Amino acid sequence: MRNVDLRSDTVTLPTPAMRQAMYQAEVGDDVYGEDPTVQKLENLGAQLMGKEAGLLVVSGTMGNQVSILAHTDRGDELICEAESHIFYYEVAGMAVIAGVQARQVTGRRGILSAEMIQQAIRPQDIHQPSSRLICLENSHNRAGGTCYTQSQLRDIQMVAAQNGIRVHMDGARIFNAAAAQKIPVGEIARCVDTVQFCLSKGLGAPMGSLVVGSREFIDKARRYRKMLGGGMRQAGIIAAAGIVALTTMADRLTEDHGHARILAEALANQGYSIDLAAVETNIVIFERQGDVPAFIAQLRQHGIQANQFGEHRVRMVTHYGIAREDIDYTVSILAKLAKR
Amino acid sequence: MRNVDLRSDTVTLPTPAMRQAMYQAEVGDDVYGEDPTVQKLENLGAQLMGKEAGLLVVSGTMGNQVSILAHTDRGDELICEAESHIFYYEVAGMAVIAGVQARQVTGRRGILSAEMIQQAIRPQDIHQPSSRLICLENSHNRAGGTCYTQSQLRDIQMVAAQNGIRVHMDGARIFNAAAAQKIPVGEIARCVDTVQFCLSKGLGAPMGSLVVGSREFIDKARRYRKMLGGGMRQAGIIAAAGIVALTTMADRLTEDHGHARILAEALANQGYSIDLAAVETNIVIFERQGDVPAFIAQLRQHGIQANQFGEHRVRMVTHYGIAREDIDYTVSILAKLAKR
Amino acid sequence: MRNVDLRSDTVTLPTPAMRQAMYQAEVGDDVYGEDPTVQKLENLGAQLMGKEAGLLVVSGTMGNQVSILAHTDRGDELICEAESHIFYYEVAGMAVIAGVQARQVTGRRGILSAEMIQQAIRPQDIHQPSSRLICLENSHNRAGGTCYTQSQLRDIQMVAAQNGIRVHMDGARIFNAAAAQKIPVGEIARCVDTVQFCLSKGLGAPMGSLVVGSREFIDKARRYRKMLGGGMRQAGIIAAAGIVALTTMADRLTEDHGHARILAEALANQGYSIDLAAVETNIVIFERQGDVPAFIAQLRQHGIQANQFGEHRVRMVTHYGIAREDIDYTVSILAKLAKR
Amino acid sequence: MRNVDLRSDTVTLPTPAMRQAMYQAEVGDDVYGEDPTVQKLENLGAQLMGKEAGLLVVSGTMGNQVSILAHTDRGDELICEAESHIFYYEVAGMAVIAGVQARQVTGRRGILSAEMIQQAIRPQDIHQPSSRLICLENSHNRAGGTCYTQSQLRDIQMVAAQNGIRVHMDGARIFNAAAAQKIPVGEIARCVDTVQFCLSKGLGAPMGSLVVGSREFIDKARRYRKMLGGGMRQAGIIAAAGIVALTTMADRLTEDHGHARILAEALANQGYSIDLAAVETNIVIFERQGDVPAFIAQLRQHGIQANQFGEHRVRMVTHYGIAREDIDYTVSILAKLAKR
Repeated sequence: MRNVDLRSDTVTLPTPAMRQAMYQAEVGDDVYGEDPTVQKLENLGAQLMGKEAGLLVVSGTMGNQVSILAHTDRGDELICEAESHIFYYEVAGMAVIAGVQARQVTGRRGILSAEMIQQAIRPQDIHQPSSRLICLENSHNRAGGTCYTQSQLRDIQMVAAQNGIRVHMDGARIFNAAAAQKIPVGEIARCVDTVQFCLSKGLGAPMGSLVVGSREFIDKARRYRKMLGGGMRQAGIIAAAGIVALTTMADRLTEDHGHARILAEALANQGYSIDLAAVETNIVIFERQGDVPAFIAQLRQHGIQANQFGEHRVRMVTHYGIAREDIDYTVSILAKLAKR
Repeated sequence: MRNVDLRSDTVTLPTPAMRQAMYQAEVGDDVYGEDPTVQKLENLGAQLMGKEAGLLVVSGTMGNQVSILAHTDRGDELICEAESHIFYYEVAGMAVIAGVQARQVTGRRGILSAEMIQQAIRPQDIHQPSSRLICLENSHNRAGGTCYTQSQLRDIQMVAAQNGIRVHMDGARIFNAAAAQKIPVGEIARCVDTVQFCLSKGLGAPMGSLVVGSREFIDKARRYRKMLGGGMRQAGIIAAAGIVALTTMADRLTEDHGHARILAEALANQGYSIDLAAVETNIVIFERQGDVPAFIAQLRQHGIQANQFGEHRVRMVTHYGIAREDIDYTVSILAKLAKR
Repeated sequence: MRNVDLRSDTVTLPTPAMRQAMYQAEVGDDVYGEDPTVQKLENLGAQLMGKEAGLLVVSGTMGNQVSILAHTDRGDELICEAESHIFYYEVAGMAVIAGVQARQVTGRRGILSAEMIQQAIRPQDIHQPSSRLICLENSHNRAGGTCYTQSQLRDIQMVAAQNGIRVHMDGARIFNAAAAQKIPVGEIARCVDTVQFCLSKGLGAPMGSLVVGSREFIDKARRYRKMLGGGMRQAGIIAAAGIVALTTMADRLTEDHGHARILAEALANQGYSIDLAAVETNIVIFERQGDVPAFIAQLRQHGIQANQFGEHRVRMVTHYGIAREDIDYTVSILAKLAKR
Repeated sequence: MRNVDLRSDTVTLPTPAMRQAMYQAEVGDDVYGEDPTVQKLENLGAQLMGKEAGLLVVSGTMGNQVSILAHTDRGDELICEAESHIFYYEVAGMAVIAGVQARQVTGRRGILSAEMIQQAIRPQDIHQPSSRLICLENSHNRAGGTCYTQSQLRDIQMVAAQNGIRVHMDGARIFNAAAAQKIPVGEIARCVDTVQFCLSKGLGAPMGSLVVGSREFIDKARRYRKMLGGGMRQAGIIAAAGIVALTTMADRLTEDHGHARILAEALANQGYSIDLAAVETNIVIFERQGDVPAFIAQLRQHGIQANQFGEHRVRMVTHYGIAREDIDYTVSILAKLAKR
């Protein structure tokens, strides 16, 4: 039986080129700043995003956490979307580690407008925390992979500047956002102060993310990475795969987006409840009334894996490991299940 | 000129009976558990609320913070209304001190339903914090002094029990809530695990709040109070005023509510934009288009003080220091300003 | 039977003058900055210590905690004596609230030298926290009320300046230190950046401490006080007693010191093991082999209260509530118990 | 010129076998619990140490931090040696993340006795944090690689049990400790509740550490690992090298110890000030009066790298990358420099 794993793009396996690169990687002790492959990757990432410096971290969560730490003081407040990863899926890390409060603002399809953000900024008041950071997730996972337009980002950038607040982008899937809009990632990154983006997920590296920003920001973030236990020794091994990911895997994301589109439209045609307008990248979320765990178990019996995503929602994510035939197969099975 | 201070019920001055009680208070070292007046007050508060034990704290904020600390572990999440004091006005204390994340739910006029709360409870998942505490503000300050009905509270109590979650009430103004519903405070308190309520504000004591709950909870809260620097020595001085507040000042709150009603209806009649249904207790919030700081300055020229409360909102609070004549006078001035 | 409570100077009861002052105190809402008595006290304290500004807090612990918070960022390290109150008796508050690590240095009789401090200052290193604050306890409680000389303080001040580190003094009993050295408190305070000192303890107020320092520091500390729940409303009540304490109670501390000296020398003569050189102020610590709880119980049967202070140590503290006759009586009882 | 890098055993490069293992590693998404190589490594580590379960983390620091988090509540105190890594080199992480205070006890050559620990355990007292955890570093880096004897560990285990306190071992170099004492690591691990040990350092893996303990402890630690951003996806890549490290590299550590011994004795013979008794494993620390940075620069000119380790101390660490000829060469250069 076919095995189609649509649970997440985190399940992607390293490509042969990545394995080869890791095998041959030149490495050193990165805590001493002596791993040439790590340095190459950090510079490459910074350059792609148009920032001064980069930092390799273990995961997107670590990238977000060191960014929050480097941008804030204890007792500050950050503004984020109500279903953003940073608030929703990071085990309350920002409260525990940074002592920072999340102000949740409900966006439209996960996207915040400059006006929504302006409303959430606190006045100076002894009772209230200082609004210190805006966090934007792009593309937005729980909203179904939706993206900020450049115009929206520039408006937010202006509100931030007027209020002396920094903007961090959780760009775990920023390459998907760039591909969807057919612009270089650097144009997106230009609108924000710092970006975290994953080498795993759509780009297929086995692990690792990069944080980019000003030199001063990265110096602080590096120190906090050490505090979290993210200082690695011969990290060039994983950096080598990251370089392959960055240089060879971004262009093929449009293929995943095409697959997601096919899947989404098929679902709509089959009568599943789905917001087609939200399917901008590689994530497909649809509703399923009735017993969702049972539905997912049925899919699994046909070799298809998907994630429950709320009481009546199912998420499917396309990625490097999913071929066109997998999509066609999945559509056929969904059709069968829809009829029941 | 008349001086009518409607900014808050926190401006109330101690009554002569309170001054007398403080003057004569029998005191001891409360850190050693030897202040008889503190003990009397803590027992009285516990008894009124139908709980095992009580704890005197300096302020409502301290009462809320030690309650959060005693109910949670680092990394937990609490569910609160989006404009609740605990999230809005406590300087991000829960993140800094407790390492706890606030999940904000927008209520109806500040009131959460059991359904809203159920939706916000997290499943067990390694990415997500545990939902550990529900915080209800009653009456709700920023919503204009609105109250939970007993039926709403019982539904929430049931959801909490089903999910193994505790309920804490920020009852800074719980006596107003009880007076508005014409029930004893103990009936409200019965629906929740712990309550914080203020001796200052409507009850007029110069400072201090009480936290009540189970003996085990209070033991933990007492320890956290020490950590926050809230351990006091001859605190019987302030406890003495608290006893007068609790035993003599609660019954007269209906008078403040009557004053607020008169004020609110006059505002409505004069064409101010006001949600009359929200005026259940001693708080009156209305909208004022145009330059709100200038409007407040005009009021001040007539000896009336009020607080700006958002960009186009004004808040007035009635209390022990406001007589019927003050209300009539205020209404007449508001009428004058409305005409312009 | 005579009641001689030598457990601590925290047990002192307010004087009639304090009661009178509290009774008549002019008060206002201090969170709005409108309590004239609080302002008078804060100004008086700042002036006495030669600092720009002052802040009333509930307790010495709160004064220390807001000072640490205002001086540091999360992840900093402070240098303190190994048995200082700030490390020993504040329930790990600095770790929980400030996220600050305590580097403990064992002083000589509780007193740190500039050399000891210099040794404990960290180099800049990505593995290590930054040394950010030096905390000196003066007089030092667990060491038996020992004091810093002016020369020691000036040397520490110099080391601090050379390393860009601030100095905070936990001067809960700074008036005892000043009295012992026959200098104004301001001369001590001049050697450090900030001071916390108690109005209770030797000065006899029922509760409250002051923090003094630069205007900028106090502004930060005030904000953190609010976060800890230390913002009070009509706090003029307790400030009134504080003013009496500051203006009338400091000069009489030499009397307490004389009493402590008599007690200490009698203990030495009676064969108790005691370090007479450590008895510089109002604290007397001596050793007692055998069953210390039983010894303390025997004292109690004679109406004398003392604190166990380690496995084989007993502490007695003289204060306003202890007269010469109480000392003579205590000496006679100790003589009796020594013989056994 | 010969290149002899004695700065640390963290500089070791992966062996060809490790590269091969990583190249071929079977991997999966470890956040979903689906990486077979990670599971194999975790089970292997747990088995070696005689514990129920294991957890792969990125670094020794992360291993220690998740262990502290899993063992404590905010506001607890842990007892550690005054120069232990956990206090000295982890950027105050335990204060920031866990809200835990470190009680520093100065050991003999870094080794704590049961008596020292007993003295540092707090009584139950509202002013004091709870003593909750004992952390032992074995071998002890800053003390020069010294080890606990089994008898010392059993005494500490007893004190811990009597006081209801857990014991965590920072066993970053536990395999060195085991090799020095010629016992299996499992015998050491049996005396403590949990162990963190590094796959990098002496064992030569490019990165990674394991934490082992009870199933319940590991479940908690896994959750905290996620919070710190240590959750990895296809981590089997690094786990594969870890398996090679664990199964093939431990036995050869006695060779490093022999090298260290030769180096230490030569230094003593050449007149360097060195505590020979402290050289039990692969670390050699000696004193050098005068300008230490200049001395280290001179070594570097001869191709030898060493670390300054305090104002007048130098540290050299032997490891897999150092052959007997490197040692002989180093000894000859040291002899030359000693003569000057």
